[in-house]
Amino acid sequence: MVQATTHAIEEASRQGAALVVLHELHQSEYFCQSESTDSFVYAQDFERDVQYWSSVARHNGVVLITSLFEARAPGLYHNTAVVFDCDGSVAGKYRKMHIPDDPGFYEKFYFTPGDTGFEPIDTSVGRLGVMVCWDQWYPEAARIMALKGAEILIYPTAIGWFDSDTDAEKQRQRESWITIQRSHAIANGIPVLSCNRVGFEPDPSGALEGIRFWGSSFACGAQGEMLAQATTETETILWVDVDLERTREVRDIWPFFRDRRIEAYDCIGHRFCDE
Amino acid sequence: MVQATTHAIEEASRQGAALVVLHELHQSEYFCQSESTDSFVYAQDFERDVQYWSSVARHNGVVLITSLFEARAPGLYHNTAVVFDCDGSVAGKYRKMHIPDDPGFYEKFYFTPGDTGFEPIDTSVGRLGVMVCWDQWYPEAARIMALKGAEILIYPTAIGWFDSDTDAEKQRQRESWITIQRSHAIANGIPVLSCNRVGFEPDPSGALEGIRFWGSSFACGAQGEMLAQATTETETILWVDVDLERTREVRDIWPFFRDRRIEAYDCIGHRFCDE
Repeated sequence: MVQATTHAIEEASRQGAALVVLHELHQSEYFCQSESTDSFVYAQDFERDVQYWSSVARHNGVVLITSLFEARAPGLYHNTAVVFDCDGSVAGKYRKMHIPDDPGFYEKFYFTPGDTGFEPIDTSVGRLGVMVCWDQWYPEAARIMALKGAEILIYPTAIGWFDSDTDAEKQRQRESWITIQRSHAIANGIPVLSCNRVGFEPDPSGALEGIRFWGSSFACGAQGEMLAQATTETETILWVDVDLERTREVRDIWPFFRDRRIEAYDCIGHRFCDE
Repeated sequence: MVQATTHAIEEASRQGAALVVLHELHQSEYFCQSESTDSFVYAQDFERDVQYWSSVARHNGVVLITSLFEARAPGLYHNTAVVFDCDGSVAGKYRKMHIPDDPGFYEKFYFTPGDTGFEPIDTSVGRLGVMVCWDQWYPEAARIMALKGAEILIYPTAIGWFDSDTDAEKQRQRESWITIQRSHAIANGIPVLSCNRVGFEPDPSGALEGIRFWGSSFACGAQGEMLAQATTETETILWVDVDLERTREVRDIWPFFRDRRIEAYDCIGHRFCDE
C-alpha cells in the first residue's frame, strides 16, 4: 500500500497536483475490524512514517494529507492526520477527535480521542480544516474549523458496506455520508474534499463478513455542488480544481455567519438538554 | 390565500392527515420583497388570526403548524410559528430566531429576532422542533432542537429564485437548500418536513423583478432519505407517512450523540474565532 500510494502521488505530482489527500490509515488494511493488540505494531514506527511521507511530499513538491496510526506513549495511540507542506516540513497534525465504535469499526479500542481540538493547519495552498472520518458526521466540528478560518474542509475516511445489508439500506448510508459532508460546505461556504478507502477487506476474526469500502471520494464547492466524484469500486486519482475565491462571493450572497444567534447556542455544549 | 388554505386543510383532514404544515407567512403574499410600513397591517390582527387557525385545527382535528406575522407591541413584530393541537389549543409558539436580509428578502426591517430560543413543542402527534425558513441553514438550531428531545424538525419557508440568475446558479441554490435540511435529519437521526411557498410574486416596488418561489416542499426520514417531494411549480397537498420509531434504530446504528466532544465545542458560541 505504501509503495502503490507513493507511485500514485508521483503521478499526481507529474500532472500538476498541488495538494494530495490520502484515505484514512492508508499504510495498511483497515485493522479496526477486530480488536487485537497485534495491530498496535502498525503504530510503532510513527516517527519513521512521518519522515517517509515528509520525503514524499518534498520529493514531489505537493502539500500532502496523510492519515497515520500514532504511538504517542505506551498504551496511548491516536488516529492522526499529519499534514506536510510541499517542502516536506510538518505543517501541522490533527488527532481524530470523534472516535466511532460499532460492529466492524472497533476504533475506541485503538484510538484515544484527539486532544488537538479543531485547529486549521496553514499550508502554502491555504488554511486547511483537516479532520478524519467519523468527524464528518458532526456539524460542530466543521463549523469550528470554519470559524477559525479554514478555507477548505478535508476528510480522509474509511467507510463501507456490509454485504448483508439491503441495497436500499446501502444506498441510504452512502447518500447520508455524501449529504452530510456537502452540508458542511453549504453551512460554512467553503469547499469540501473527502477521500474514502475502496475495495473489500475481510474480517480477519471471522466474526463478521468484512467491509466493502464504498469509495465515492468526492469534492464539492462552497455551495455544496459536486465538482468531482470517484466510483464505488475503483482505486483512482481524482482530480479537481478548487476555487477558494468563491467563498467570499457565496458568503456575501448567503451571509449565514452574519446572523448566527450565538447567545442562544449554549445547549450545544451539553450532552443532552433534558434537565 | 386564507380561504384556499382552509379548504386544503379540510381536504387533508378528510383524507386522514394528523399533522398539517403550512408555508411561511401563508396568510398573504411574501411582503418582505420591499420595505414598507404599510405591510405592518398584516400583523395587526395576530390575536384574531390565532383564533381563526385554532378553529380550523379544532374543526378538522389536525395538529396545525401556522406561520403568522405577530404584532407584539407597537414597533415590535415577529415572524411567528403558532402550533395548534388537534383540539384547537395553542400547543406553543416559535418566534423565528435567525432573520435574513438580502435583496428581495428584507426581513430585518419587519421582524425582531425571536426570543423563544429553540424549544420543541409538545403535541398529540409528537414533540415538534418547529423553526422557520432562514433557521434551516443553521446546524446549531437543528442540533439544539434534537438535544431538547424534538422527534421531528419542521420548517415553514419561503425561498425562491430570481429569473435573472443562470440555470446553474438556480440549481445550486435549490440543491443546497434541500441538502442542508436533509443533513439536519442525518446529523440528528430524526425526520425533517419542509414546506415552501410556490409561484411567482412580483416586487411591488419595481426595484427587482420579483421572486419565483421554488416550491419543492419535501419530507425526509431519519437517515435523510427522501420520502416525498413536491414540484417546483404547483401548489399541492404533499402526503407522507412519518415513522418516529425509526429514530431509535438509526441512532443505535450511527450513535453520533454518544461521541460528541462537548468540551471542545466552545468556539460555537463565538462570532468568529480570530482572537
